[in-house]
Amino acid sequence: MNDEQRAHRVVVIGSGFGGLFAVRGLRRAPVDVTMISRTAYHLFQPLLYQVATGILSEGSVAPATREVLRRQRNARVLTGEVTRIDLADRTVTSTMPGKVTAAPYDSLIVAAGASQSYFGHDDFAEHAPGVKTIDDALALRGRLFGAFELAEVETDPVVIARWQTFVVIGGGPTGVEIAGQIAELTRRTLPGEFRNIDPARSRVILFEAGPKVLAGFGGRLSEKAARELRRVGVELRVNTKIVGVDETGVDVVAADGTRSRVEAMSKVWAAGVAASPLGAQLAGQCGTQVDHAGRIKVEPDCSLPGHPEVFVVGDMMSLKNLPGVAQVAMQSGRHAAAEILRRLKGEPSRRPFRYRDKGSMATVARFRAVACIGGLRLAGFPAWLMWLLVHLVYLVGFRNRLMSLLDWAVAFGSGRRSERTVTRSAIRGLQAESPPHPASDHGSAQPSASGRPGTV
Amino acid sequence: MNDEQRAHRVVVIGSGFGGLFAVRGLRRAPVDVTMISRTAYHLFQPLLYQVATGILSEGSVAPATREVLRRQRNARVLTGEVTRIDLADRTVTSTMPGKVTAAPYDSLIVAAGASQSYFGHDDFAEHAPGVKTIDDALALRGRLFGAFELAEVETDPVVIARWQTFVVIGGGPTGVEIAGQIAELTRRTLPGEFRNIDPARSRVILFEAGPKVLAGFGGRLSEKAARELRRVGVELRVNTKIVGVDETGVDVVAADGTRSRVEAMSKVWAAGVAASPLGAQLAGQCGTQVDHAGRIKVEPDCSLPGHPEVFVVGDMMSLKNLPGVAQVAMQSGRHAAAEILRRLKGEPSRRPFRYRDKGSMATVARFRAVACIGGLRLAGFPAWLMWLLVHLVYLVGFRNRLMSLLDWAVAFGSGRRSERTVTRSAIRGLQAESPPHPASDHGSAQPSASGRPGTV
Repeated sequence: MNDEQRAHRVVVIGSGFGGLFAVRGLRRAPVDVTMISRTAYHLFQPLLYQVATGILSEGSVAPATREVLRRQRNARVLTGEVTRIDLADRTVTSTMPGKVTAAPYDSLIVAAGASQSYFGHDDFAEHAPGVKTIDDALALRGRLFGAFELAEVETDPVVIARWQTFVVIGGGPTGVEIAGQIAELTRRTLPGEFRNIDPARSRVILFEAGPKVLAGFGGRLSEKAARELRRVGVELRVNTKIVGVDETGVDVVAADGTRSRVEAMSKVWAAGVAASPLGAQLAGQCGTQVDHAGRIKVEPDCSLPGHPEVFVVGDMMSLKNLPGVAQVAMQSGRHAAAEILRRLKGEPSRRPFRYRDKGSMATVARFRAVACIGGLRLAGFPAWLMWLLVHLVYLVGFRNRLMSLLDWAVAFGSGRRSERTVTRSAIRGLQAESPPHPASDHGSAQPSASGRPGTV
Repeated sequence: MNDEQRAHRVVVIGSGFGGLFAVRGLRRAPVDVTMISRTAYHLFQPLLYQVATGILSEGSVAPATREVLRRQRNARVLTGEVTRIDLADRTVTSTMPGKVTAAPYDSLIVAAGASQSYFGHDDFAEHAPGVKTIDDALALRGRLFGAFELAEVETDPVVIARWQTFVVIGGGPTGVEIAGQIAELTRRTLPGEFRNIDPARSRVILFEAGPKVLAGFGGRLSEKAARELRRVGVELRVNTKIVGVDETGVDVVAADGTRSRVEAMSKVWAAGVAASPLGAQLAGQCGTQVDHAGRIKVEPDCSLPGHPEVFVVGDMMSLKNLPGVAQVAMQSGRHAAAEILRRLKGEPSRRPFRYRDKGSMATVARFRAVACIGGLRLAGFPAWLMWLLVHLVYLVGFRNRLMSLLDWAVAFGSGRRSERTVTRSAIRGLQAESPPHPASDHGSAQPSASGRPGTV
């Protein structure tokens, strides 16, 4: 093929907000776009906690990327795990089971996002998984609903209490939203469904190392959020650090140095993120360094120092202290696409990325949210209405909007949850989490509708 | 506790149609009901193939059993795998991870259903799984959609063809419905989403050992179904036996003894069922035997010979050649409940179970089904409309009806599929299925939107 004839090749790594908005930004450009992602879906991350807590189906928040992009004829989608970016060769290597693919590029947009960070305690991951992927969310769904199944057949009150205690680590928006939903699950959805246990007596404990939850929202909203969380049944433990996580609980240290233990079978980690390891790989090749969260310091136009043809966007990018939120990813992805377009048109000037803060919000419970938009600070029902509208607008696809709206009507209206199916493998997976019982410990389950523990 | 005071204890094993209708049949009875099931959901089995092929979410066809039964105060639900039924002790033993539970009964209804049968070739299971549980359906969803992801990154045409060939084994309703939906997926949903492969050129091959598909529907409907299947792109191979299943394909023998091989990475088994092994356990204890499909020959009132207090219903029961269909399970479950009620009222006469055949139906493709209801034989659109109505009526819960209707509108209207999210573990799971490639076999993926295989 002749070099003069072929179109400018753009490779985009990642199918999250950054990657998707980059590809879409190139839809009218005379380029060949290849998006490479290890997931075959575009994840609407801000609603993932609702998949985990049984409100939404995975299809509603994770449409197939190639379906989303099917009409963009200059783009193609490859599923694969990127193992190597070669800046000298301008090639991205990715693998699928049994297959290695090398994609050459003229321009590259790296939007591989971030995963959970355990701040050096990677051994916590086994017992306190994060919620970053669909796999995570479905596994957590199995753990949450499965915990009550285990508690219902249990007879030892100590073990029952352990199954009915839920620990969420991290008081940012994700941690607050998960804790709030687990509390509503135990208080509004599950009561009435069990005969031996009372789901409403479950404990949901939210740990935060700093002095406040939702610290980024400012003092007043942070306090309102804390109040709402307590109202729905979440115990808040601020100024508390997690120093140990094991099968049956967590070890914590309070600000005054007091160490204590909380027995809990279900733990969720929402305390921090680390950029994709592709960041460190890139940094190594261009003689720069990554920050404490694994992010690369980029030029004002989001390009890699010394490599104007490579853009790093979204959660992987370190630029002017911008936060790792969806809006930054969307806007920086779109900016990279626009930069490529401008250069192809022969405009040499490199424009700096300007972030337009559209605000942030977090739902605490049904009908209750906090939002800060520009100078505006909202809490309670008005903030929740805004949350509803914004999330409906950004969800990809009419069907997903309609379905989510219906599922929300069910969840917020009746308290029921429509997507709580627990697979058998999830139930079996609880085994590793279950403390060993002697084989002779036959409990007795007399059919008794009155809630008394039965005797044979 | 005093024997005089306590209510009559009924244990129901299984949360399928048989078990659920048995429990519901006892809702006004002065009894304590315990339902024990290894799944925490009630599965609407007739629509499971739609979960596998990306049309419906698992929540739509598998609501939590305890949610369905939450208002029935005399019933409780235990999740657990029944390991032993002791007819002498009148006790059912079940296990959950780390916990063994023993439930005593006065009356027992066994409705544990059936699983896939490989007719002595259990080694086929690894490569040609069945579709009987939510786990199965989600795994198959991953295999189907994942196969196209693998094909898209592949460069070897032989390997691509292998990923694009789908084999369905068994020409009964399940096999026909799965094959029809896979064909529609390849012809209506996926075209336009890929750049290297053409999904419409996929092969979907339905194997049937006998001379006809849907033999139970009679000659004319069977022929109409075969015609419709061919019209949507399914290759029919009747009078053909599967003699080998391995990682990359199947070995078949035609009626004239010709042996041949079909290369296909994705295989689905829908050829036969075997009743739960609890059947053989029961038979061993009461001196009777199970038939070739593992079912127990029961008395005319569905009770176990010599044990009038034990009922065996649904797919586990062998009675007057009744088929293993949802209606038999529902009606026999309800009959067992009615029998228990009658005896508690002091009516000693044991009434024989009378099956009211409400007919059977199978969807072949969108707007196309076959149905035989009493003397009535319907095919095409009228049968499909009837299929739609009947399935809406029997789906549990208003939300699930509305959601399914919307998902069907999407699937049958636009051809899109709303629930096709493939987990990363499913993609990784394809690895075992992938033939080894030498590490040096780097394919080249030039970003080319024209569908040409790229070159570097």
